[in-house]
Amino acid sequence: MALSTAFTEMFGVRHPIALAPMGGSAGGALAAAVSRGGGFGMLGGAFGDPEWLAREVPTVADAGGSWGVGFLTWGIDLGAVELALGYGPGAVMLSFGDPSPYAEPVRRAGAALILQVTDLEEARRAADLGADVIVAQGTESGGHGAARGRSTLPFVPAVVDLVAPVPVLAAGGIADGRGVAAALVLGAAGALVGTRFQATAEALVDPSIARAIVEGRGEDTERSTVLDIARGSRWPSKYPARTLGHPHLDRWRGREAELAADPRARQAYEDDVARGVVPPLPVWAGEAVDLITDLPSAEDLVTAMAAQAQDALARAGRP
Amino acid sequence: MALSTAFTEMFGVRHPIALAPMGGSAGGALAAAVSRGGGFGMLGGAFGDPEWLAREVPTVADAGGSWGVGFLTWGIDLGAVELALGYGPGAVMLSFGDPSPYAEPVRRAGAALILQVTDLEEARRAADLGADVIVAQGTESGGHGAARGRSTLPFVPAVVDLVAPVPVLAAGGIADGRGVAAALVLGAAGALVGTRFQATAEALVDPSIARAIVEGRGEDTERSTVLDIARGSRWPSKYPARTLGHPHLDRWRGREAELAADPRARQAYEDDVARGVVPPLPVWAGEAVDLITDLPSAEDLVTAMAAQAQDALARAGRP
Repeated sequence: MALSTAFTEMFGVRHPIALAPMGGSAGGALAAAVSRGGGFGMLGGAFGDPEWLAREVPTVADAGGSWGVGFLTWGIDLGAVELALGYGPGAVMLSFGDPSPYAEPVRRAGAALILQVTDLEEARRAADLGADVIVAQGTESGGHGAARGRSTLPFVPAVVDLVAPVPVLAAGGIADGRGVAAALVLGAAGALVGTRFQATAEALVDPSIARAIVEGRGEDTERSTVLDIARGSRWPSKYPARTLGHPHLDRWRGREAELAADPRARQAYEDDVARGVVPPLPVWAGEAVDLITDLPSAEDLVTAMAAQAQDALARAGRP
Repeated sequence: MALSTAFTEMFGVRHPIALAPMGGSAGGALAAAVSRGGGFGMLGGAFGDPEWLAREVPTVADAGGSWGVGFLTWGIDLGAVELALGYGPGAVMLSFGDPSPYAEPVRRAGAALILQVTDLEEARRAADLGADVIVAQGTESGGHGAARGRSTLPFVPAVVDLVAPVPVLAAGGIADGRGVAAALVLGAAGALVGTRFQATAEALVDPSIARAIVEGRGEDTERSTVLDIARGSRWPSKYPARTLGHPHLDRWRGREAELAADPRARQAYEDDVARGVVPPLPVWAGEAVDLITDLPSAEDLVTAMAAQAQDALARAGRP
C-alpha cells in the first residue's frame, strides 16, 4: 500500500517526497529521476537565469510527469517567474522574501503555488496569500535559512495547526525514510528533501562535493554568513547558510563585519578556489548528512525512502 | 492496541512516554501522575539535595509503579547517587557531564542506567559505558543543553544507528502525541518530555510559570547563558539554557563577559526578582511551547498523548 496524502493527490505522484529546488544543483536530470522514482521533482531555478532554465527544463518536462521550479524570492522579478511559467510547470516554489507579487501570475498560469516559510508569521501570510502547499523549513536544513530558525520537529505541527487545511511539507533534517515517516506523523503531507539528493548520480554538483556529503558529519555543519561574504555572494546577510566545515569559515567566524570590509580577504578566498585549496562552492549540507553514506541514483533513492517510510510506520509501537 | 517498545517492556509501563527529570519542578506528585497515566515518571533530582529527595521520593515510590530519578552529572558526587539508590529507583538518569564514576554503583543497585547525550561522541561513550537507555537530546528542548546542539529530527536516527540495540529516547521538541509518534518512527523506543509537563496541575512550578508556558511561543524561546550568569547560578557556561524572553536577557545578550564581571548587574537582577518585576526563576521552555495551550493533569495528559500518537501513526499516509 502506497503512502497517499493531500500532496501526492494534488500532483498525482506515488510518494510524498519532493526534491528541494536547490539552486544550480537540482537540474533537469535530477528532477526527472526523482519523478521517475515516484516523487515530485523541482528544478533549482535560483535567480531565474534564462539560459539555465532553457537547458534544464526540457529534461524534466519531456519526462512526462508533473514537475516544479523553485526561485529565491528576494532575487527574482516578475519576468523570471513569467518566463518559467511559459514552460508549463505544475508548481512554482518561492523561498526567502515577499512572494506576494508572484501569487496571482502563478495562479493565473494554472500552476500550484508552493511557499516556503521559516516562522509562524510567514506561515500565516503564506496561507492568506492562497498558497496551495506550504513548506515548513527547519534550521537543521542544508543551505540558506532564516537567521533565527526553528527546528523541524516542533515547527511542523505548529504550522500544520495554523494553516490547516493547506497541505504542509516538512523540510530540514530529512534524509531517509524514517524522516519521511516523521514528517507524516507530525501532520505534514510529505517531505521536501535537499542534501540527500546532492549525493546522487544525477545531481549537478562537483564529485568532490557529493563525496564531502557522504563523508560529512552533522556536527561539522554550521550556519554562518562568512562564506557568502568571502565569495562575494548576493545572498542578503539575514540568511545564513548551513555548510560543512571550511578553512575560511574557521578564519573569519565572529568577524563578519571585518571580512566584509577587507577586499584582500575576499581575494584570498578567490585565490584558494583557483588553486583548488578549497572547493569551488561551499558544501551546503544539513544536519541529516550523518544519515547519508552512499551515492545512489535518485530514482532508486526515492523508491527506497518510500519503502523505508512505510516500514517505519508499520514497525512503530511494536517491540 | 498499545504502543509497545523496548522501553515500555524494560520498565513495564503502558506508554513510551517518560517525564524529563526537570530539576526542582519534576517532583513526586508529577512523577506519580505520569506513572498513573501509564508513562515513566522521573524525579528532577538536580544536585541531589537530600531534603528535597526525602520529601519528594515517597509520593512516587508509594504509588507502586516503577520510577526514576535524574541528576546533573557535573554537579553531584557519589554520595548523592548512593543516597538516591537507597530509595530503590528503577532508573537513574544522568545528564551533562562525565557519568563514568556512577555507572557501576547504579548497576550494582539493580537500577537501569539512563544517559542523556547531545552529540554522537557522547552517544558512543554512553553505549560503551553500558547504558541501558540513551536519551538523544535536541537543541529545541527547554532548559539546559549543549552549546552546539543538534536538532532532534536528524539527531535521533543517527544515535539509534550508532548505539543499536540500546533503546533510545528522543528528547527536545516533543509536546504532543504527534511528536511521540515521530520519535517512534525515527527509531526511538519512546519520548522524553519536559516543557509540556511544566504546564500541568502537578508540576512544582509557580502558577505564573505554567501560565507563561501556555501563553509562550516557540519563536520567543532563546538559548543563552545570560540568565544563569545574572542569577549567580552554578551552571557552567558551556551549557546555555533555552528560556522564554526576559528583560535581563534583552539587556545583556552578547555581553555575557561584561555581565559576569559586574556585581551591580547581578544585584539588579536579584532586586527585580524581589520586587516581582521578573519571575523567581527563568521560564525554561522548549520550542514545542507552541503546542501547549492548556493545563491538564499529567495523568490525563499522558493518556491523551499516547492516544494521539496511535492516531497519528494510523492516519499517516492516508489522505
